Amino acid sequence: METITPYRRKTHYYETDQMGIIHNSNYFKWFEEARTDFMEQIGLPYHKLEEMGIFAAVISSYCEYKVPITYGEEVVITKRITEFNGYKMTVEYEVLNAADNRLCAIGTTRHCLMSRERKPIRLQKEFPEVYNSLLSWLRPKSD
Amino acid sequence: METITPYRRKTHYYETDQMGIIHNSNYFKWFEEARTDFMEQIGLPYHKLEEMGIFAAVISSYCEYKVPITYGEEVVITKRITEFNGYKMTVEYEVLNAADNRLCAIGTTRHCLMSRERKPIRLQKEFPEVYNSLLSWLRPKSD
Amino acid sequence: METITPYRRKTHYYETDQMGIIHNSNYFKWFEEARTDFMEQIGLPYHKLEEMGIFAAVISSYCEYKVPITYGEEVVITKRITEFNGYKMTVEYEVLNAADNRLCAIGTTRHCLMSRERKPIRLQKEFPEVYNSLLSWLRPKSD
Amino acid sequence: METITPYRRKTHYYETDQMGIIHNSNYFKWFEEARTDFMEQIGLPYHKLEEMGIFAAVISSYCEYKVPITYGEEVVITKRITEFNGYKMTVEYEVLNAADNRLCAIGTTRHCLMSRERKPIRLQKEFPEVYNSLLSWLRPKSD
Repeated sequence: METITPYRRKTHYYETDQMGIIHNSNYFKWFEEARTDFMEQIGLPYHKLEEMGIFAAVISSYCEYKVPITYGEEVVITKRITEFNGYKMTVEYEVLNAADNRLCAIGTTRHCLMSRERKPIRLQKEFPEVYNSLLSWLRPKSD
Repeated sequence: METITPYRRKTHYYETDQMGIIHNSNYFKWFEEARTDFMEQIGLPYHKLEEMGIFAAVISSYCEYKVPITYGEEVVITKRITEFNGYKMTVEYEVLNAADNRLCAIGTTRHCLMSRERKPIRLQKEFPEVYNSLLSWLRPKSD
Repeated sequence: METITPYRRKTHYYETDQMGIIHNSNYFKWFEEARTDFMEQIGLPYHKLEEMGIFAAVISSYCEYKVPITYGEEVVITKRITEFNGYKMTVEYEVLNAADNRLCAIGTTRHCLMSRERKPIRLQKEFPEVYNSLLSWLRPKSD
Repeated sequence: METITPYRRKTHYYETDQMGIIHNSNYFKWFEEARTDFMEQIGLPYHKLEEMGIFAAVISSYCEYKVPITYGEEVVITKRITEFNGYKMTVEYEVLNAADNRLCAIGTTRHCLMSRERKPIRLQKEFPEVYNSLLSWLRPKSD
């Protein structure tokens, strides 16, 4: 079975705040980067989806900050699709310190698949290959 | 009883994305702005708290996006402290379209009060006036 | 003669960096806010221009940082159109500390007026009222 | 002679605006990333410099946008130190489309080397090894 390479990135100075840590709002940008990277790895780069007319609007986002991350550190972000029914999709993330694999944050984003005009799309019928690909990467939480 | 003026702000072009709406990560910046505005209105401007040695680290943040917000629109953000025990604080937000009061998003941030060195502080003992002020603004959810 | 109210805004925590000052990239967002505010004051709100099919693409931007600005401070941003020929426009900015009017930064942005498809537009011919309005606000530098 | 690997990065969805291109303010973040990458390659990672007490405050920044960059494209950023006298440093950048090497933007940032307390430092005397390293990478413009 294919595996996904976790997304790895450095932290940037412009992401810090005066408390000397990465500002909380940046984690949602990181989730997007990690999600984009995931989509690319599974053969569905997001800009191609948009060209096809598939938009994955964010309907909620959550992050829990466990250990502050500082400038100069690198993070590794794992992600998996934990829910997917053809209309809605949930992606979960773990942000690890790349140096010691310490869990620094967890997060969740929920998405609704829609057309450019923000109408719901029936992925299974209209884009079966995309539907099947996403479905094959579904990894429900066992607990 | 004193009341709090909701925080009102315009949306900025640089906050839009190519879907033509405000990008999801900005809502967490808006929550921070609204929270800061609230703290100032209740006489505890956040930069003063930091000078006193009180830091309100964000330990989790959540946003649910109900109606997209576009450039040119104005938003009104209401907020209230729904939990506070002297160590941790929960703030809840509602983002309304200023033109028609339509609810566009809701959100929650949780905070831990700590020292500059990220040690827990006992607000009630060390800063009783701050403790009492925050406590007086506690508005638990009734439901 | 009508005058323009300078744009005033607070600084935000999320705009700081770990040096304890506002990060340099934010000034370009402030310039955009100030420019947008100016356009609104002169009766040409930018989102209306876009609806009419007029886009003011940024072709260069410059900022000189003279005095660091910190969280908790407020800034006042003055701006004026120093060049305008119907195709291109130059806007200059001054960022002052609102507390003491101390000059903290100066900046310049240059813009090209174009259609949605990024084609040049002849403002004077196609949108004479916009052209005349912008022209009336031209304030060339005397030095 | 050692060479520097240009900095390569993808563009992010959150960097786009509703014009469908990367928003102009992001280029200054990219310059910072490229500069940081450069410093790391020459053995002077910026977070180490800060630990040593050397801060490179940005005193001006400039960007000229030649060709819009869109989401899904990758950019390559070259940079070189064009001026350095032990106190001040100028870095110049070129942003190329990674697919076809087309020049999309050029930029310049100027920096002042200072202590944490924002006092000037005499790099040559106080940190000769940093001074010599930066000097060895000076590439004045010949034209």
